[in-house]
Amino acid sequence: MKNILIIGCGLLGSSLLRKISKNKIAKKIFIYEKSRSHILQIKKLKLKGTIVNKLEDGIKQSDLIILCTPMSSYKKIILKMNSFLKSDHIITDVGSAKKESFKIINKFLKKNISWTSSHPITGSEVSGPRYGKHDLFENKWCVLIKDKNTNKNHLLKLKFFWKSIGSKIVEMDTEKHDKIFSITSHLPHLIAYNLVKSAQDFEKQEKYDLIKFSAGGLRDFSRIAASNEIMWRDIFFNNKKNISKAIDLFIKNLNSFKKDINSKNNKSILNKLVMTKKVRSKIIKLKQDINKPDFGRN
Amino acid sequence: MKNILIIGCGLLGSSLLRKISKNKIAKKIFIYEKSRSHILQIKKLKLKGTIVNKLEDGIKQSDLIILCTPMSSYKKIILKMNSFLKSDHIITDVGSAKKESFKIINKFLKKNISWTSSHPITGSEVSGPRYGKHDLFENKWCVLIKDKNTNKNHLLKLKFFWKSIGSKIVEMDTEKHDKIFSITSHLPHLIAYNLVKSAQDFEKQEKYDLIKFSAGGLRDFSRIAASNEIMWRDIFFNNKKNISKAIDLFIKNLNSFKKDINSKNNKSILNKLVMTKKVRSKIIKLKQDINKPDFGRN
Repeated sequence: MKNILIIGCGLLGSSLLRKISKNKIAKKIFIYEKSRSHILQIKKLKLKGTIVNKLEDGIKQSDLIILCTPMSSYKKIILKMNSFLKSDHIITDVGSAKKESFKIINKFLKKNISWTSSHPITGSEVSGPRYGKHDLFENKWCVLIKDKNTNKNHLLKLKFFWKSIGSKIVEMDTEKHDKIFSITSHLPHLIAYNLVKSAQDFEKQEKYDLIKFSAGGLRDFSRIAASNEIMWRDIFFNNKKNISKAIDLFIKNLNSFKKDINSKNNKSILNKLVMTKKVRSKIIKLKQDINKPDFGRN
Repeated sequence: MKNILIIGCGLLGSSLLRKISKNKIAKKIFIYEKSRSHILQIKKLKLKGTIVNKLEDGIKQSDLIILCTPMSSYKKIILKMNSFLKSDHIITDVGSAKKESFKIINKFLKKNISWTSSHPITGSEVSGPRYGKHDLFENKWCVLIKDKNTNKNHLLKLKFFWKSIGSKIVEMDTEKHDKIFSITSHLPHLIAYNLVKSAQDFEKQEKYDLIKFSAGGLRDFSRIAASNEIMWRDIFFNNKKNISKAIDLFIKNLNSFKKDINSKNNKSILNKLVMTKKVRSKIIKLKQDINKPDFGRN
């Protein structure tokens, strides 16, 4: 890539910016950012890159355009970009749900322009450029969407780009992507939000001050439940069919757990508790988490 | 305390052992442990304390007796201890659910012997003496149960003991204890087990290899779902009424979330996601978790 335009410079956008600049992956980096607070942070942190006031200026000078905004902004941005886009522009996004985004893209993106979608599996409960890190993508999976309409040439170039960022690449079609992440990411977030919500409800209902006793489990969920609300609303709405199915499976299993507990079904419950333990070993073996008790946090 | 007997020397027992010995809290420490593997670890680690083969030897020489075994062993241990217990023995346990344990204690413990129950809010997903740490209790809450039958003198001495271990003390009655921890600890564990179970079911059903994409949320739950199965079976069985109610509240809220998602109820979902964020700040302010994004693990 010669020049890169990053649209939306929050946690992910600013991490890309840091890495691109650190490893000299592009000649020039342009940033398009609407939030005043984000712009102030970028300036204060002296992140390298040219902030453009008009999308036009960034698009015309760039080969690669990366959307790092919440998915609910795609339509508006596409409509703003359309007049300046050319067929050799490589366009990608980092959104966490794909099927609904592609509906927007296919409906509003100018004809003969390709969009090749990415999903780097990384992030944090904190938001904004101040929290970005150059190594946020290091050894993390980046899913590249490969459907029948995917531009193979752009896909190849994006693969090369994400590898230079430090990611490991995996290709997947839209449907498989949205199903897998409904279980490994979207449902866990929903469950975490819901658990914290239930604790809040219980606190009100019983008039107990219980948050101070959260070290026994709740605190882990509260981290995830502190994630950006706009980003997660968009994900929940954009993958609602798969998430709905995931919720149904979850409730079915939870009722079975409840039955085991109420009937003190020793064999059935131990079977469940032992089986789930194996997943942790697998996750650590696959280097998807660190191998320290309690995340090494104490 | 002059001499202390620790019954069951796993993660908690061995952490107590380390702290008592490091800070010279007792003159002599006795350990009663059934597991061959635990005994080998204790010897290999050269933990200070005398391993006794007979409970009798430990009880007769000790002032304070601390049960750190799974709750399902209490009955057997009580029946073994009874003949050697005297009314001035201070007896406590570290079990995570109290009402059902007290039923066993009241039914099987010799008359005129007091049992004063403790619950230090700490632990880990790993088990066994090798993972114990002298600072496991440092600045953590320790709940001391105070019911109408509680021996005030023993309670006072235990308070002093747990403070010397580094814990912060809070007194609670059995009922309040079991309710609070059904929400802040027992439900979170059950939910974590159930989420990992659901991911496993989905993996089988769809024939997807999805555990490798767990960095987007699932991995956090897998840590908790790797906790000791015997300990957690006992907790689930011993607090089944409160946990059942907690499950019902959780499912009610989850169905409301599902409704919001399916109807794209922007206002309702954002309200939920913003509210839960506040709990994280509260937890950090209360020093119940570290203030580093992603637990500082990357």
